[in-house]
Amino acid sequence: MVENSQTQNSLLIDLDGVVYQEGNLIAGASEALDWLERRQVPHLYVTNTTSRPRDSLLQKFDKLGFDAAAGEIMTPIIAAREWLAEQGLRRAAMFVPPATLRDFGDIEPVALDGTEPADAVIVGDLGEAWDFSLLNGAFRLLMQEPAPRLIALGMTRYWHGANGLQLDVAPFVKALEHAASCEAVVVGKPAPAFFESALVKLGCAAEKALMIGDDIVGDIDAAQRCGIRGIQVRTGKFREPDLVRGIEPFALLDSLADLPDWWLKNLS
Amino acid sequence: MVENSQTQNSLLIDLDGVVYQEGNLIAGASEALDWLERRQVPHLYVTNTTSRPRDSLLQKFDKLGFDAAAGEIMTPIIAAREWLAEQGLRRAAMFVPPATLRDFGDIEPVALDGTEPADAVIVGDLGEAWDFSLLNGAFRLLMQEPAPRLIALGMTRYWHGANGLQLDVAPFVKALEHAASCEAVVVGKPAPAFFESALVKLGCAAEKALMIGDDIVGDIDAAQRCGIRGIQVRTGKFREPDLVRGIEPFALLDSLADLPDWWLKNLS
Repeated sequence: MVENSQTQNSLLIDLDGVVYQEGNLIAGASEALDWLERRQVPHLYVTNTTSRPRDSLLQKFDKLGFDAAAGEIMTPIIAAREWLAEQGLRRAAMFVPPATLRDFGDIEPVALDGTEPADAVIVGDLGEAWDFSLLNGAFRLLMQEPAPRLIALGMTRYWHGANGLQLDVAPFVKALEHAASCEAVVVGKPAPAFFESALVKLGCAAEKALMIGDDIVGDIDAAQRCGIRGIQVRTGKFREPDLVRGIEPFALLDSLADLPDWWLKNLS
Repeated sequence: MVENSQTQNSLLIDLDGVVYQEGNLIAGASEALDWLERRQVPHLYVTNTTSRPRDSLLQKFDKLGFDAAAGEIMTPIIAAREWLAEQGLRRAAMFVPPATLRDFGDIEPVALDGTEPADAVIVGDLGEAWDFSLLNGAFRLLMQEPAPRLIALGMTRYWHGANGLQLDVAPFVKALEHAASCEAVVVGKPAPAFFESALVKLGCAAEKALMIGDDIVGDIDAAQRCGIRGIQVRTGKFREPDLVRGIEPFALLDSLADLPDWWLKNLS
């Protein structure tokens, strides 16, 4: 993370669908990120990925051939851990891939089947691991008295996988909210609190920040609701009908590769 | 179904949690139903069960020791079939237990993984059969262009199984609505159209009808919104906190067994 001043434009960067897609770097993405480093544009990766821990994301970065420090990545798990600590909640049922449990630090995991009391039920993207039994366990936990808090690690609806569209975390959170008549605390995109803590980490005012993403709702609209300018890319989950949904991105680029030229023309 | 007159009180009867529970008749239920028959009270079983076809429900009735004719049972599948026929929709992806497919008559089933075009996606209670792949298939179907209609076989949130609370159909419908940004057509309780067609079948005005059920929301509140008096029983999924949710049942009985006495005192 490059040190900032209030007068400098800063950038929030979504990862999946913007930097890489289906495990491969998007053409020209690496050069664009190098350009941001050379130009010392303050930036922070903001991802709703809960499928791998932060150190494994860093390894992935390394393999793909670019560098990032741990402090340059904001994930919903990091945000959830901070929120639980603030609230004094200690025991949580964590519906996340096992590898990411370590990012929760000293939060104590409880059984996922509703047989142990919990302060919180944390729901991340379990992908293909979701089945009735897991979802029903989360529901039974939420029906405990007193009821634990439901925490959503982001509210992404779906993503573009190698075989087609894949449900993400939000549909499962909606299922649980409806079943147990409760409302989730969302940590991650599109929650305003997530963008606000990203701005704090960057030391940047909203009006000097830009967010580049592939999700017209979760990235662009959510950022613009916080006063951050949104840059929509035509990669990842983008589809042309996204542009007629009443959300107007500040800019529209074919991909991250086009960012340096656009930046020089429009922000310099 | 006993023939009716507009001046006679008629009864809609929920099955699971009212007549039987976990496969066994509720104590005194059989005698109460016999009493209704002898007294010639017009009645209709209205169930959101989509786990078995109507003829199998009749066999279950038979085993439990009481009689009902096919015409005495309204299920969401029967209502869905009628709705699809009215709309001229023919090809549907049916997320229902295989045994119930025959209740759909000449509606043509399509693949559940989104690889064939569909006019409708029908979602029933698959219970433990739900997994990521099935739910994702329903989502992919709904993202087809043109988008098929999403049809919910009832909107029951959960039920009381032998091992504890079990998610029913509504949470899965909510997941799909959110993921695909669409709104389901609900056939079954608590949809007003379902109660209205039950009244038509009974030949009864709403103000002469009563609905006995265990679900304060799906049975009692839903019926009362249609002008039908609701009788809440303390069996099945009933829990005491249900009574402080701002819904006031017309009557509250310990179980169906108490209906004859209550009826004689209050409606005769």
